[in-house]
Amino acid sequence: MTETLAPEIAARLKRDADGLVAVIAQQHDTGEVLMLAWMDDEALRRTLATGRATYWSRSRGEYWVKGDTSGHVQRVLSVHLDCDGDALLLRVDQTGPACHTGAPSCFFTPLELA
Amino acid sequence: MTETLAPEIAARLKRDADGLVAVIAQQHDTGEVLMLAWMDDEALRRTLATGRATYWSRSRGEYWVKGDTSGHVQRVLSVHLDCDGDALLLRVDQTGPACHTGAPSCFFTPLELA
Repeated sequence: MTETLAPEIAARLKRDADGLVAVIAQQHDTGEVLMLAWMDDEALRRTLATGRATYWSRSRGEYWVKGDTSGHVQRVLSVHLDCDGDALLLRVDQTGPACHTGAPSCFFTPLELA
Repeated sequence: MTETLAPEIAARLKRDADGLVAVIAQQHDTGEVLMLAWMDDEALRRTLATGRATYWSRSRGEYWVKGDTSGHVQRVLSVHLDCDGDALLLRVDQTGPACHTGAPSCFFTPLELA
């Protein structure tokens, strides 16, 4: 039997042309925004079912359980959908650095304000 | 004279097929993630130049200075680009609720974990 995302959740998602929604991962206790990634319905289903953040890798074209290669797992404490259904906020407990560069967060490049 | 985004910044952006990058707005002091929106090069240029969060509205197809209609302005304190250039994090000081529904944050719909 194939498992699918709960229909009441699937009905609320507003996917882009590639079937994806944007996903923000935030460290639950410090509030640090760690990264932005992407999910399709199946990645969201797996995330909700397992409590392990599971994304769709646009560059590799495959599912990606965060930490399966690096050990830098994201245990998911909560998932919230936004008002127009095209973005998710995950509050996570991040093991190790979130970024593949080794930085704690992917957002480490400041742009200068005037 | 037409102003353009600084070339060293433009060169780092990895835009989607519509020329957009995803933008996370976070309240600077509480750490609350407020919303996810979109910018093209010009929206980012205006944001950096004015310190007022300026997005590209995908639904209306126009620039959107956050708060111009609602009064719910976002004063931008910092802008960070992520490691692969396709997402921005804005730390802002939000006046009033961030969400058009009147909620403080757009991420108010919890999805149940197994």
